[in-house]
This record gives sequence, C-alpha cells and structure tokens, in this order.
Amino acid sequence: MCKGLFITVEGTDGSGKTTQIKLMEEFLKAAGNDVVLSREPGGTEISETIRNLILDPGNKDISPLTEMLLYAAARAQHVFQVIRPSLESGKCVICDRFVDSSYAYQGCGRGVDLKTVADVNRAAVDGVVPDITFFLNIDPRLAIERRIKSTGADRIEQEKMDFHMRVYEGYRKMALLYPDRIKSIDASKSIEEISLQIKTYLKEIL
Amino acid sequence: MCKGLFITVEGTDGSGKTTQIKLMEEFLKAAGNDVVLSREPGGTEISETIRNLILDPGNKDISPLTEMLLYAAARAQHVFQVIRPSLESGKCVICDRFVDSSYAYQGCGRGVDLKTVADVNRAAVDGVVPDITFFLNIDPRLAIERRIKSTGADRIEQEKMDFHMRVYEGYRKMALLYPDRIKSIDASKSIEEISLQIKTYLKEIL
Repeated sequence: MCKGLFITVEGTDGSGKTTQIKLMEEFLKAAGNDVVLSREPGGTEISETIRNLILDPGNKDISPLTEMLLYAAARAQHVFQVIRPSLESGKCVICDRFVDSSYAYQGCGRGVDLKTVADVNRAAVDGVVPDITFFLNIDPRLAIERRIKSTGADRIEQEKMDFHMRVYEGYRKMALLYPDRIKSIDASKSIEEISLQIKTYLKEIL
Repeated sequence: MCKGLFITVEGTDGSGKTTQIKLMEEFLKAAGNDVVLSREPGGTEISETIRNLILDPGNKDISPLTEMLLYAAARAQHVFQVIRPSLESGKCVICDRFVDSSYAYQGCGRGVDLKTVADVNRAAVDGVVPDITFFLNIDPRLAIERRIKSTGADRIEQEKMDFHMRVYEGYRKMALLYPDRIKSIDASKSIEEISLQIKTYLKEIL
C-alpha cells in the first residue's frame, strides 16, 4: 500500500538525532527524493495539542499508562494525516521518534507493561511500520557530558539519569530484538562518521 | 483486589441513564453503601481536558482511531484516579458510560475495528471490569420521539439517526455476548418499572 520510504530516528536526548536528520534529508534530496520531515510527539495540530497536554506541568497527575495512551493517540493522528498520505504519494518520510520511543520511554523508562505498549501501538499505527530505523546509540552519561562541554548546560540529577539509563537499555534491547529493521549506529563517533554509516544503509535500501 | 462494587450504565442518548443513576444512588445509599457517582468521558480533571479536546469543533479532523485512543486515555486516568481507589476502599461506584460505550460508539458507530477497541481498552482499564452493567435498551427512534414530545427538541437528521442506530445495534450485540455482566433493561417502560427491575438485580448482587 505504501510506496514511499519510511525512516525513523531514535535515541536518548543528546544523541544527535537533529543533526543526522538534517544530513539525511540533504542526502535523500540530492538523490532526487521528495522528503517529508516530521517529529513525535507532534507532527499535526491535534498531536501538538495532545503533546502540550502531556507536558503541561499542571497535569502532573497523569499516570504512565494514560501518558502512553495519549502518545499513541497523537501517533494515530500523525499516521493518519501525515505519514500514510506522504508514503502513499511515494515520498520519503523521516520521523524524529516513533513507536520505539514509546517502548523505551513509557515502557522501559516509566514501567508500563511492554505487551500493553505493543498492543496499543499496533492499534495506533494501523499497519504503518518503518522500513528502517536508526538508533543513535550513545551512553546517556557520555551524551550529557558532551552537551555540558559544548553548551555549559547544568549537570543532570541522578534520578533523571537513572531514567535515561533505563530508556537507553530499552533501546538497546529493541535493537537486539529487531536487527533487520533497527540499525544501531555508534553515536559516540564524529558527525561525519555517523552520517557516513547512515548513508551506507540508505544506499542499500534505496 | 477491588472490594467495592462497580456498576456501569450504558445506552444511547435519551435512554434515561441520568434518571436511573439518581434512583440507583438513592437505593444504594439507603441500603447503607458509600456511593461514588462518575461519568465518562470525564471523571477527572485530565479526562475532562481530553474530552474537551475531542469535542472542540476546531479539532474536526480527529480520526475515529485517534478519538478511540483519546477516550481510552481519559478512561485510564479515570480508573487510576477515581474508580480503582474508590473500589479498593470498598465503595460502590456508579459510572455513566464505560468501555461498552467505546465498542458501541467508536467501534460500531464510527467503524473502528472491534478487536482494536478491545485491545486498547483492555490496556486502559488495567484489570478493572464492571461487576454489573445496565444497558437501558430503547430504540433510539423511540427515545428521540419521547424527547421531542417532552422538550420540544428538533428532529434529528437522518445521518445522525443512522449513527445512533449503529450504536444501538452495537449495544444489543454486546448484551447478547456478555449476558452475565450486561443486563438489558427494557427502557421503553415507565421510570418506576425500569427502576424496579434494576433494584431486583442490585438486590441479587449486594
């Protein structure tokens, strides 16, 4: 049904997704592809509204299960309004985060049962699965050190670091479970080296 | 785990839920029970916010699947903050609409795959299932005639009526599938007759 190419990019905060997505876009455009960039949570007006609802500090009582379902609702709308139509018209869609983020963050990070995350997200994506997923694999402790050096950001609290480590371990497990789809990229390397590795995979799939 | 009693009331608009819930509350209180009334969509501040998002005319592009997931998210929060704690403290919870509404409205009414509705709602309720459900069974055409007579309301458009008929048929199927839990009550009868039938079931279960 979907004639286009659906690429998702995953990783913990500071893993370099934004930079690599920009380079991927340039590469795909130079190869003559029509490219659509999107991101989650968000990607449509309704999805952004849902995202704001989740992130509103006034809604701190939201349970991890409710949060997971809200992200899935935002994803369903994103698939419906943006991803599916773009793929059906033959475009390349690059999405910053997708279902794997729910496994890593709501599942492994916040403790929602993984089968529940799978069941709900199977419903939300309605058959739309990434052709390839790049997991920018870098230990969050290293990623944060890197960010502190370059931006002078504050050190992260231990509780938050424990959470990011659970998320990271979740991603690593997913990459081991689905090696055909998820390509684990050593994101401790230089921007150029990472980009080169991604382009090698993209050339194979194009 | 849940020591209390969880009662849900279902039916199409105008089937008389509000009246019967009030009578049920009086009956249960008179019998010495601590009663909590709630309603869906809603029941918590976050759930009400989600409800407003769904009902906002500016969000008319929401897909049926997104709508179903949003209702499930609101339900998960309602279970987490209100229903489960009330049941665990031994109270009777009467809820105006619950999972069966999603089958009838989003599933049968709007055409979302019923297995998908089941999977997502199984996740949302996290093991909390009604002890008894009263389906106020009245043909929507009759219910609307009754409302027009008593309030002088406008006649309903045919498209809306077709929708309500699909919802109604959905409820009837559910009542046939789960006769132990769902009690189909002839809601074309008088308020007193309906209430008497409900009380008979409640006496059995108390």
